[in-house]
Amino acid sequence: MNHSNQIMEAVPNFSEGRNLNIIDKLLTPLRSTEGVRLLDYSRDEDHNRMVATMAGHPDALRQAITDAVGIAIACIDLNRHRGEHPRIGAVDVIPFIPLRGYDMEAAVRLARETAAGIASRYPQLPVILYEEAATAPHRRNLADLRRGEFEGLDAKLQRPEWQPDYGPARRHPTAGAVAVGARRPLIAFNVNLGTTDIRIAKEIASSVRQSGGGLPACKALGIELRSKGMVQVSMNLTDYTLTGIHQAYEAVSREADKRGISVACCELIGMIPQEAAAHSLGHFLRISNFNSQQILI
Amino acid sequence: MNHSNQIMEAVPNFSEGRNLNIIDKLLTPLRSTEGVRLLDYSRDEDHNRMVATMAGHPDALRQAITDAVGIAIACIDLNRHRGEHPRIGAVDVIPFIPLRGYDMEAAVRLARETAAGIASRYPQLPVILYEEAATAPHRRNLADLRRGEFEGLDAKLQRPEWQPDYGPARRHPTAGAVAVGARRPLIAFNVNLGTTDIRIAKEIASSVRQSGGGLPACKALGIELRSKGMVQVSMNLTDYTLTGIHQAYEAVSREADKRGISVACCELIGMIPQEAAAHSLGHFLRISNFNSQQILI
Repeated sequence: MNHSNQIMEAVPNFSEGRNLNIIDKLLTPLRSTEGVRLLDYSRDEDHNRMVATMAGHPDALRQAITDAVGIAIACIDLNRHRGEHPRIGAVDVIPFIPLRGYDMEAAVRLARETAAGIASRYPQLPVILYEEAATAPHRRNLADLRRGEFEGLDAKLQRPEWQPDYGPARRHPTAGAVAVGARRPLIAFNVNLGTTDIRIAKEIASSVRQSGGGLPACKALGIELRSKGMVQVSMNLTDYTLTGIHQAYEAVSREADKRGISVACCELIGMIPQEAAAHSLGHFLRISNFNSQQILI
Repeated sequence: MNHSNQIMEAVPNFSEGRNLNIIDKLLTPLRSTEGVRLLDYSRDEDHNRMVATMAGHPDALRQAITDAVGIAIACIDLNRHRGEHPRIGAVDVIPFIPLRGYDMEAAVRLARETAAGIASRYPQLPVILYEEAATAPHRRNLADLRRGEFEGLDAKLQRPEWQPDYGPARRHPTAGAVAVGARRPLIAFNVNLGTTDIRIAKEIASSVRQSGGGLPACKALGIELRSKGMVQVSMNLTDYTLTGIHQAYEAVSREADKRGISVACCELIGMIPQEAAAHSLGHFLRISNFNSQQILI
């Protein structure tokens, strides 16, 4: 782990989850740029997406990611991209997360600098700022920003409320657009269900997410995993003190149970805070006073 | 957490779990000695015992613990000590654990230096080396060393095979003796059962521990928790790669179930390695490839 007192995190999402050769190329700058550590990466064939988790100095993160954007533009053609996860571009989204020793203001500044740098280096690529870095309230929510996806992007970018923050108001012909933002840490947690019926995953997703009256600070999508013969409830837990991993797991399990469906397995994408791990482990082991400081690194 | 590359751990166990004034005195050198960090402490009224977990430089650990031994000798009288956990002395046991950047040889050396230092500073206190620091194979096992406890100590120390390594061959009149050793990390995990019948805890302990044909690398005792109106299966998991916390929890739960008894709650005493936490959390969340590096500190 990184033992310095300052950690900025970045979690770029690339629209390639199948071609290992391309994935390896995308990872090269994330692995080799000085001042950056690649903590984890996770690819999924059905999502057709790769999520990298990095920590490091802001300048180094910006440099590594800007290099990777160039590789993605060269290697990924969204016109041929089919995947279950919504996406607008070859590099779909680049969030920065202030983990330790940085505040949200520093992450917003880094998001804007990175966005400006990407636009100046790749002038055909529109760049849209989102969440804490958004330049208007209606542009904060990533789900709104992604609605219409790559295919609907040209029409969307023409509308005044979706003018890009940097770059042209038309999509890059093969790489679409990229969303760059700053946000608080979130936990990406997926529950895979033993059925091929995507309606069930969508139903459960809609019942567990906050916007459907479910768990607080929980976003959820139903996604088809054709390669596995399963469906998935793919969740983002945006505040683990409100909804922990165990609560998300148990809510989805209960909903699956009701429908006579089994939970096949689960996935954690990227990192989870030590406190979230201790909180959930304490729940399962019925330890009321388990402290994250008891986990020794 | 300690961010240096070298961590030696020490987990001294004191025979006082009730008097907060004495516990505070015992903790003073563990808190205030330079080069030492008190990571955790846990006291239990029924065990009548306090377990401190510290990390630091070997010399600093030795100094802090040797000071605390003096406080224990001054404040704790084993003739008046009643508790459910077996014990031989006011400071019952002092294990050193090489966590990072030290090998077992360094921990054994530290155990022997600490033992010699304690004996020279408190000449009435017999000191016995155990486990990796033991001076004979029959003296390695702490359970054998503790058998007979404080009350049987004078007779025991007379026998040639239990001559102390340092100090006199008779117990300190009020502080008994102390065992000083070196060992690999272990996980101290207790499961509290909703019954007052101590026979059930002893039966379950005997069925889950390795010596009873149960879980590998698992030691277990049945202990009465009068203050809570419960009984406890108190376990040491000496190799979490063989038996993880979740496996210990589930084995005890199954045995309790069979007897119609409920698990009330559980306790983790001291630290657990990050890998053990990830392993158990992955089990409960049904994540097959969860990696301890995904827990972000």
